[in-house]
Amino acid sequence: MKALVYVTLKPDVLDPQGKAIARASASLGYDAVQSVRQGKLFEVSLDASDTERARTQLDDLCAKLLANPVIEDYEIIRVED
Amino acid sequence: MKALVYVTLKPDVLDPQGKAIARASASLGYDAVQSVRQGKLFEVSLDASDTERARTQLDDLCAKLLANPVIEDYEIIRVED
Repeated sequence: MKALVYVTLKPDVLDPQGKAIARASASLGYDAVQSVRQGKLFEVSLDASDTERARTQLDDLCAKLLANPVIEDYEIIRVED
Repeated sequence: MKALVYVTLKPDVLDPQGKAIARASASLGYDAVQSVRQGKLFEVSLDASDTERARTQLDDLCAKLLANPVIEDYEIIRVED
């Protein structure tokens, strides 16, 4: 079973890396770029009997390992066989 | 216009960060986790007149700034108003 998890900084938290990318884009001439925020994406392979069980384990894993709940939000984008 | 871009290491490239996460998951008791690969996700706000134009600029931006085409693949997941 494959899952995709997206971890991003909470909207209130400053993202200097994203700001640097936006500035670099502008200086490269991509003036359409207004802002950039960078997050992390995890592709997780799971050995779970059903989607529901996989999602429960993933949810726990995100809260304890993949994301820092103080400053980050996470989202399980999809879980599929 | 908002776009989501996913940058990941090419399948042949080793991902020590992902391996470390997989090991940490196992040691935390999440034995369902088989492997993890970590990528980057960029949320880009664009000021473009139409989706096609936004996608062209984004594609260029990915190849030149967001991804290193030697070791990384990128994918524009979605572009929407």
